[in-house]
Amino acid sequence: MAIWLHWIDLIGVAVFAMSGALMAYKKHFDGFGVIVLASVTAIGGGTLRDLVLDVPVFWIRDTSFFYTILLASGLTIIWLRVSQRFPLRYLLIADAMGLAFFNMMGLQKALSQDVPMITAIILGTITGVFGGLIRDVISREVPIVLKADLYATTCILGGFCYFLAGLSGLSAQACMLIGMLVTLGMRLGAMKWHWHLPVFPPPVQSSSDRER
Amino acid sequence: MAIWLHWIDLIGVAVFAMSGALMAYKKHFDGFGVIVLASVTAIGGGTLRDLVLDVPVFWIRDTSFFYTILLASGLTIIWLRVSQRFPLRYLLIADAMGLAFFNMMGLQKALSQDVPMITAIILGTITGVFGGLIRDVISREVPIVLKADLYATTCILGGFCYFLAGLSGLSAQACMLIGMLVTLGMRLGAMKWHWHLPVFPPPVQSSSDRER
Amino acid sequence: MAIWLHWIDLIGVAVFAMSGALMAYKKHFDGFGVIVLASVTAIGGGTLRDLVLDVPVFWIRDTSFFYTILLASGLTIIWLRVSQRFPLRYLLIADAMGLAFFNMMGLQKALSQDVPMITAIILGTITGVFGGLIRDVISREVPIVLKADLYATTCILGGFCYFLAGLSGLSAQACMLIGMLVTLGMRLGAMKWHWHLPVFPPPVQSSSDRER
Repeated sequence: MAIWLHWIDLIGVAVFAMSGALMAYKKHFDGFGVIVLASVTAIGGGTLRDLVLDVPVFWIRDTSFFYTILLASGLTIIWLRVSQRFPLRYLLIADAMGLAFFNMMGLQKALSQDVPMITAIILGTITGVFGGLIRDVISREVPIVLKADLYATTCILGGFCYFLAGLSGLSAQACMLIGMLVTLGMRLGAMKWHWHLPVFPPPVQSSSDRER
Repeated sequence: MAIWLHWIDLIGVAVFAMSGALMAYKKHFDGFGVIVLASVTAIGGGTLRDLVLDVPVFWIRDTSFFYTILLASGLTIIWLRVSQRFPLRYLLIADAMGLAFFNMMGLQKALSQDVPMITAIILGTITGVFGGLIRDVISREVPIVLKADLYATTCILGGFCYFLAGLSGLSAQACMLIGMLVTLGMRLGAMKWHWHLPVFPPPVQSSSDRER
Repeated sequence: MAIWLHWIDLIGVAVFAMSGALMAYKKHFDGFGVIVLASVTAIGGGTLRDLVLDVPVFWIRDTSFFYTILLASGLTIIWLRVSQRFPLRYLLIADAMGLAFFNMMGLQKALSQDVPMITAIILGTITGVFGGLIRDVISREVPIVLKADLYATTCILGGFCYFLAGLSGLSAQACMLIGMLVTLGMRLGAMKWHWHLPVFPPPVQSSSDRER
């Protein structure tokens, strides 16, 4: 794997580890639970991607990811201890950055295994979305991917931009950069201006909705 | 893979995608969250089966599953928008059909990898049960497989009927049809007449049950 | 695989199956749901370990694990029906024993695939922790690995003791026994005397903690 791809993976792991540590703080988990939640968030998406692609799981022979998770979690813990308040905003921004990095990383790795374009886009989306999904499920939150305005959608759009950029002859690095900026920009924009895709009309409490 | 097996897989994917979209409506998820929930429900069970069997994941080179999920989710969304009410009954029926299709599909695929009979029955059950389990976990419902009357049990019984039918010399197609009808019939019967396996006596609120 | 490793795996499966059946009783799941919860708890950790290591999943050609799960769940069910009360204490002890057995088993299996020491320790931890994590997530409990005093930490420490024992020239069996006793002793000690790693200061309800 090219060295620059490795750095992208490490940055994605670091920001998702931070988002996991922030969530652990929010939910008052303590001790090693913080590192556990940071780790599953950081390596969950890439692990599922590699299992599905049937390639060696990215962290199995490369210990740099663990040091990255320890460093990122440790810095987050120190910072939270000093500042003493919970920054929901930073959790969402770290999550958005991880989403953008992992989306492109997953798409690139899927393409190296010669899968169809649409499968590569979906594997990019899975890579970006799955770590945060596990983080939210084991923290007993409604998963952000299900409730947030434009979440998985930004990954799909970022993936399409990668392919459009590729069609116009740009290098893989340039395509990944464009896809990453599109994913991140769309997600941050959706967070700020509450863009959303309305699919269902707003809920009306009706007698047929018998369960909660 | 024989073409008729592919169709069974597609039908199972479609009905589980519908059950995921119905659940998304019930829980007021919106936008792309509906498609995400439909997708994990539809491909979760088969993905775990293929990972455990160490065969290529069924959707990795075949994009027809994604179009099926989009079509099934899209039709469910349109229908829900028109009818404006939540049909809990249909969610359960779609779930029962997916269970029966995926159970036989998983069993058949496991047998093609020469696993023992009991492992094939269990892999069929996993294929049938796992998508709905993820759907319920990420929707924060008590998983239907844990609370429903005769759920995983119907898969096990359907699997045994497949083998009994095979012993009497029927073709694989006929065995699958029988196993599917047994699974579906038992599940619908359990839903209608509340058949269940009592294992524990009804709960008595006691002082020893200190946690919730 | 050596026969004694197989027995360690079977004992780990049995105690985790018991912890799953106990949790099913606590949550008032009934019928086959008890067996389902016992099964995912018992085989979840080892399945993930084998998928990540890309070796055949341990239960795919060996049906002894299913008979073990059936036997362990059955005995737990009979015992609970007779005694009529919920032993939270036994759930935690069964969980601690499964943790210690699976931790060493996962570490040993990872080493046989020539992974780095730190990866082997982490795979041991994953093997020990993951089954209980799924059990708690699908039972809608806060995962014990996130909230308990010294949980994943005991696996890490047990793993280090395995390597220290190995450096002093002991056989693999002796190293595993030492690692197992360290993991189990630390966990039981943490349960009894509430040892914990404080990472964050005790929560102060502040206005910035806007969500729960």
